[in-house]
Amino acid sequence: MRIAIDAMGGDNAPHAQVESALSAAAEWPDTHLILVGDPEVLQPLLGPKAPSSITIESALEVIGSEDEPVKAVRRKTDSSMVVAGRLVKEGKADAMISAGNTGALMATGLLVVGRLKGIERPGLAAIFPTLDNVGILALDMGANMDAKPEHLVQYALMGSLYRNKVHGIREPRVGLLNVGTEASKGNELTKTAFEMLEQAPINFVGNVESRDVLERPCDILVCDGFSGNIMLKSIEGAASAIFTLLRGELMSTFTSKLAAGMLKPSFRRVRDKMDYNEYNGAPLLGINGLVVKGHGSSDAKAMKTAIRQTRTAIGNRLIAAIVDEFSGK
Amino acid sequence: MRIAIDAMGGDNAPHAQVESALSAAAEWPDTHLILVGDPEVLQPLLGPKAPSSITIESALEVIGSEDEPVKAVRRKTDSSMVVAGRLVKEGKADAMISAGNTGALMATGLLVVGRLKGIERPGLAAIFPTLDNVGILALDMGANMDAKPEHLVQYALMGSLYRNKVHGIREPRVGLLNVGTEASKGNELTKTAFEMLEQAPINFVGNVESRDVLERPCDILVCDGFSGNIMLKSIEGAASAIFTLLRGELMSTFTSKLAAGMLKPSFRRVRDKMDYNEYNGAPLLGINGLVVKGHGSSDAKAMKTAIRQTRTAIGNRLIAAIVDEFSGK
Repeated sequence: MRIAIDAMGGDNAPHAQVESALSAAAEWPDTHLILVGDPEVLQPLLGPKAPSSITIESALEVIGSEDEPVKAVRRKTDSSMVVAGRLVKEGKADAMISAGNTGALMATGLLVVGRLKGIERPGLAAIFPTLDNVGILALDMGANMDAKPEHLVQYALMGSLYRNKVHGIREPRVGLLNVGTEASKGNELTKTAFEMLEQAPINFVGNVESRDVLERPCDILVCDGFSGNIMLKSIEGAASAIFTLLRGELMSTFTSKLAAGMLKPSFRRVRDKMDYNEYNGAPLLGINGLVVKGHGSSDAKAMKTAIRQTRTAIGNRLIAAIVDEFSGK
Repeated sequence: MRIAIDAMGGDNAPHAQVESALSAAAEWPDTHLILVGDPEVLQPLLGPKAPSSITIESALEVIGSEDEPVKAVRRKTDSSMVVAGRLVKEGKADAMISAGNTGALMATGLLVVGRLKGIERPGLAAIFPTLDNVGILALDMGANMDAKPEHLVQYALMGSLYRNKVHGIREPRVGLLNVGTEASKGNELTKTAFEMLEQAPINFVGNVESRDVLERPCDILVCDGFSGNIMLKSIEGAASAIFTLLRGELMSTFTSKLAAGMLKPSFRRVRDKMDYNEYNGAPLLGINGLVVKGHGSSDAKAMKTAIRQTRTAIGNRLIAAIVDEFSGK
């Protein structure tokens, strides 16, 4: 399989991207990794000993986080993100991964790779850690800021398929992110979506509150991209704040330092469980090709996780399964 | 000062409400506490030794969490929540506190107590804990599910006033909850609100991401009620999950139990810092009287915190300050 990596997108690009490619090439020699970016920057980072399964595809422009997504994708046709998308579109890569501008990646998916027939708005999915280690697939995490109820129903369908075909969950449970569990709760969007989800051919289990997400009340959680992104970053921020507070407390006295030293492995396990980098690699569902978003702050480890997830999705023929579903096959 | 307490609203009503009133009466003998609810239920809980500063106001109906807010407030005119609202309206109480149905409390504020002139939609404010212990005032936390940009501007004005008049912060910084810090980020609501906030007579500092909230990037955070509620419950859920995970890890071996025992005070301090009950008592800003929401799961300690916050707001003439601002005085 062939994976195109936007080597210039993300806070730690291109170092993290090159490092993760080297590590992935060592672990999965069957995978052809295409680093997309400026060869003059990438070649020295790659070094003389890079395996032949890593190649560089030249792209001399970069889309930054400040760029206006649609404009940037239309104008910067030689940007690493757009060129990676073109490789997927032209069948020269089975998937692309980018840790760059989320809006621009969404635009690349729509304008360069192309939308799947029957899908109005693609959604960005993410696996949320849960206490039981199984995880929830939540979408949309920020691709589509002003969602309509029918978009949420499509997310539910695509998400159900993903959980079923890729993760082997039978009749995966779909929940609707809301401010209360009662059917009457929410805004105009969720009230209408609730009624439509009840009628859809999925296993809808009702409203889910964000405070319960980590206890896995459902297998797929649907929401608009704005709320989903708020939820994602709230959980992330809270976890980070608690570990910062704990570190401060535990380093405050001799006794606490001693005890904290004994507990290091325990803390590490809890921290890893809450670490979104462990779950990095969110597919943009609804695109006619596999487009995977890495966290903007992905380090090499996180980028490698995204590569691992992408390999699994390619192996399980995720996109073909969605195409079949929406074309009524 | 006189505070009406909806004694029947909330997960732990009426026990938590009665217990908190007894504790508050002991600490603040100058405060007249009016427990609103069924006397036959409340009198036995209060006991024969209750101080004379606690009285019972009869209300034989209860608004539950399943009740449709506006209908319930219109029909259940003898409910504890509505009767408490009426006491404020009629000047028989300086404030009311309820841990009941948030939507119904919003309706009580609007329909029973009345909206402040010049305010389109009241907003529910909450103090979020921050790492520096100062806290952020965030609104709306769920009173107004489908907010318009102009509502967010009014929240910014009322919130600035609150921080200035009640907490003594000069030129408090206003942030807009969004999915990115760049001005171009967000949904239709935040994009328009951003432009309006830039023109408003406040100290607007731009977009704030939910992951940074606990580091206090601003003093007032404005958002629509849906997103605000999602953020609130996400942080709450993450904190609860992390402490559950830590407890499990720390009780897993003899060594970890021993070390955990030594660290108990440290854990307690971190937990208290993240505890929303410590910050209980969210004013519904924009109402022509002081209406305070307690967390639905408030225990006696949390209810007492709400009483404390309410006393401070009454003492600082919060409502009068907002009236002055919006009437251009």
